[in-house]
Amino acid sequence: MAGPQGELVFAPLGGVGEIGMNLSIYGLGDARKRTWLIVDVGVSFAQEENLPGVDLVLPDIRYLIEERKNIAGIVLTHAHEDHFGALMDLWPKLKVPIYATPFTASLFEAKLAGETMAPEIPVKEIALGSRFNIGPFDIELCSVAHSIPESNALIIRTPFGNVLHTGDWKIDPTPVVGPPTDEAKLRALGDEGCLVLIGDSTNAVRDGRSPSETAVAAELAKLIESSRQRVAVTTFASNVGRIRAVADAARRAEREVVVVGRAMDRVIGVARETGYLEGVQPFRGMDVYGHLPPDKVVALCTGSQGESRAALARIAADEHPEVALSRGDRVIFSSRPIPGNEKAIGRVINGLIDQGVEVITDRTHLVHVSGHPRRAELEEMIGWVKPQTVIPVHGESLHLAEHEGLARKLGANTLQCRNGDLVRLAPGRPEIIDEVPAGRFYKDGALVIPAETRTVAERKRMAFSGMVMVSLAIDDKGQLVADPELELLGVPETTADGSQMFQVAADAVLETFDSLPRPRRRDPDSVAEAIRRSVRAAISSHWRKKPNVTVHVLTV
Amino acid sequence: MAGPQGELVFAPLGGVGEIGMNLSIYGLGDARKRTWLIVDVGVSFAQEENLPGVDLVLPDIRYLIEERKNIAGIVLTHAHEDHFGALMDLWPKLKVPIYATPFTASLFEAKLAGETMAPEIPVKEIALGSRFNIGPFDIELCSVAHSIPESNALIIRTPFGNVLHTGDWKIDPTPVVGPPTDEAKLRALGDEGCLVLIGDSTNAVRDGRSPSETAVAAELAKLIESSRQRVAVTTFASNVGRIRAVADAARRAEREVVVVGRAMDRVIGVARETGYLEGVQPFRGMDVYGHLPPDKVVALCTGSQGESRAALARIAADEHPEVALSRGDRVIFSSRPIPGNEKAIGRVINGLIDQGVEVITDRTHLVHVSGHPRRAELEEMIGWVKPQTVIPVHGESLHLAEHEGLARKLGANTLQCRNGDLVRLAPGRPEIIDEVPAGRFYKDGALVIPAETRTVAERKRMAFSGMVMVSLAIDDKGQLVADPELELLGVPETTADGSQMFQVAADAVLETFDSLPRPRRRDPDSVAEAIRRSVRAAISSHWRKKPNVTVHVLTV
Repeated sequence: MAGPQGELVFAPLGGVGEIGMNLSIYGLGDARKRTWLIVDVGVSFAQEENLPGVDLVLPDIRYLIEERKNIAGIVLTHAHEDHFGALMDLWPKLKVPIYATPFTASLFEAKLAGETMAPEIPVKEIALGSRFNIGPFDIELCSVAHSIPESNALIIRTPFGNVLHTGDWKIDPTPVVGPPTDEAKLRALGDEGCLVLIGDSTNAVRDGRSPSETAVAAELAKLIESSRQRVAVTTFASNVGRIRAVADAARRAEREVVVVGRAMDRVIGVARETGYLEGVQPFRGMDVYGHLPPDKVVALCTGSQGESRAALARIAADEHPEVALSRGDRVIFSSRPIPGNEKAIGRVINGLIDQGVEVITDRTHLVHVSGHPRRAELEEMIGWVKPQTVIPVHGESLHLAEHEGLARKLGANTLQCRNGDLVRLAPGRPEIIDEVPAGRFYKDGALVIPAETRTVAERKRMAFSGMVMVSLAIDDKGQLVADPELELLGVPETTADGSQMFQVAADAVLETFDSLPRPRRRDPDSVAEAIRRSVRAAISSHWRKKPNVTVHVLTV
Repeated sequence: MAGPQGELVFAPLGGVGEIGMNLSIYGLGDARKRTWLIVDVGVSFAQEENLPGVDLVLPDIRYLIEERKNIAGIVLTHAHEDHFGALMDLWPKLKVPIYATPFTASLFEAKLAGETMAPEIPVKEIALGSRFNIGPFDIELCSVAHSIPESNALIIRTPFGNVLHTGDWKIDPTPVVGPPTDEAKLRALGDEGCLVLIGDSTNAVRDGRSPSETAVAAELAKLIESSRQRVAVTTFASNVGRIRAVADAARRAEREVVVVGRAMDRVIGVARETGYLEGVQPFRGMDVYGHLPPDKVVALCTGSQGESRAALARIAADEHPEVALSRGDRVIFSSRPIPGNEKAIGRVINGLIDQGVEVITDRTHLVHVSGHPRRAELEEMIGWVKPQTVIPVHGESLHLAEHEGLARKLGANTLQCRNGDLVRLAPGRPEIIDEVPAGRFYKDGALVIPAETRTVAERKRMAFSGMVMVSLAIDDKGQLVADPELELLGVPETTADGSQMFQVAADAVLETFDSLPRPRRRDPDSVAEAIRRSVRAAISSHWRKKPNVTVHVLTV
């Protein structure tokens, strides 16, 4: 009996070996022609990498642009930025159908509505738990608990067998919003047979299980209840369960909830629309904050990562136009520092402490839990689904290696791949068979630029050693016909002996010009090059750094 | 009976409300004339602070330069960079006597010897535990345990009473090198009477006591003993106790110690010279590394903070010329991430994991302890010394506030001050009476520049939005007499519609020039300004970022 024709392939274009930027593709067909399914189109945040002026890091989708005609669609597992944050910028280059559940679709729509000049991007809504086709891919959603409503694992059924793409998940028997992880469906998949599990490795270094969101809710309630003055809570804006927990605690403590920060407003609007805040009291606007007695208010703030323009950083700097805290108030960080943000968060905490505000974090109180599976949860998932092969994704090398080791210990075959590896999942034992182009794009202002262009490298060079600009006009005899112009930017103004760096550069320009043989050797290019070198050398002799020097020689 | 004339004052010029850059001054006299003692002259590291091109952050000592004639001397508590790292750059501006114990003095000398063009800086050696005078200040050293040999608290005796300046310390009854904290001397000070304790707050948020260096040594020994292949250990180069622990463990496991990294070499040289590695076997150079069997070597590496040019980062990137690791080898981070370095350390760990190397950190094993006192230790110190007043220093706001709260709970008077506050310690209850100029200098290449100069701000602006340079030559009739020159740096090359950004800028230059009324309005300044604006606007219409634009108009 002949098996199905062709093969089933998988390639991560982001998210493997790094945090964020999740984008995976599945393909059916053969090397001549494959039909593709895209799962998630996420971003990374650039602030903590040394990428000056870059807002976001996006997956390089030049391969997908080439293959555009063969893409059946994009399915989003959930609405976290590292899974859907690049869609707005990249979709116009693809224009293929997008599938998402109602909360994800609504949050995406709200995000577009909040952007100036955002393109119109249609999204097809799919029901939670539903089964549907995208081209040749038969996809079933499986609800999983996470830190945002409507996180979905995907069961992808193909003629070669079934794949489980876990997306982001944890096992939480008592989430605050939404259903728990659908154990029955996952067990059923295990019985039906699962070729490959492609899964979240974020917390694979952590033993045991994550506590439940309900335990966090109880701790928040205790902390709000026991406060004598104002309480502010900051959390990831998209964590609707956490928002609901704060709201419930505030109601029981007879406090009003005041929402501070646009991202929080947006998510709350979407959560109300999609039913995830049903029965929750109305929240108040910032305008009433100043009028409420200190023991009657809970401020729900953006800025848990220390973002300098978010609500909490402005409050900590005492620069928020409407919301202020004072001695004896309490701020709860219901969050965890994303690596790279520690310094910025520290600055916010110190600002609050300087105001006499009490700061509570997850170091001492159960005010946050992760939305990703720890080792016991990973083991349980593998036990339910019994995949033949486990491919760890979504994590740095350390997490992937730990996830792989755990899966192997449980008897599964494993495969480690990296962004751009093309893996044949079936037929046969999974193996890497090819590479597809993968890399990074940068969002720079309104433009998306390939990471390898010189733009950011040039900016880094100027950031390190400044810029000197020289202009000269010479006539056809090689004589100067105007006073040279000179400007120094980002170069120290004075040398160690107190002389002006401007003068150092100006002297180098004139001395070099005068020393050039005339007139033949005074073609503009060699004049420019000689002056460039001498200005660099002159400044470097004082600074021990070589500035970038641009010389324009105009021939009159 | 009249008390002593004048007053005793104290001011921190760094280290309070921030990590690093410790510099304190004590003054005797009155507002017309004080004689100063400087304690420590430390740096902060700039890499994590968004200060492009800045190597080090130094305390602004313009006030001390003014007061230079009244400075009796500088005393160093110990040889950590955050306590003595600014001396090399700042001492030439002060040229006052420096006092330090032998290890500190030798390490400083070794540091100078390793720098090209370092000034000659004399240091007066003082014996451990000794009592000596610096001008009117009667100073006694009190040995304290810390993470470097020869950390000293200072007992400063004055006509107004005694001050304890703790420096960095912990209580470790079994340090690996050097004596434990001198409890007897501190108790005696308590009996004699202590006006003010000015003390280390770094770990004031942590309950209990730090484990001993001996416990870390035992854990390292176990981990080295149980390795089947190569072991590499990275730690702070100055932690001689840790180096000794690794050496002892290696000897017992019949392994050679190979030293990898210049900073480590330097400290080992000084530690051998000053007796802190007495009886320790000779270490080997990197040249033998490749010839030793994997189970016969321990590599002692610099780079525990993920520094990109240090040994471990180069090994992790498989770019070290002499030292490589392979699958199954073990790397021990006998260190802790300094806030801000998490990302860089993560990159190193991931590089090692990608090579199949096992990575062990203090998250799972007792391979590091802090050198600073936790709360039980702080309580014990206050119990010994019984200071009337505690002034918390050395820490961010959170640490200072916790230290203050703890001291108050123990019945001490407390005072919170910030960098630049001038505190009258006596007579009377301590209070802030004035301000002295305090701030930051940056080490930028070979130069030291005040933080408020525009240099770094200009570099940041160019890092964010690039640079455009335009040059034109016009005659006295306002006519162009040469083709304009134009250069774009750090600006995206193409727009969203695929046109060249260079062309966008070039069109803006010519169109603007042609649109100017001629010739009267064509004075060089208004031409330059009109073109600057139009180029910014033209690029910004595509990029939504406004580049920095410099226009030179040469009048021929």
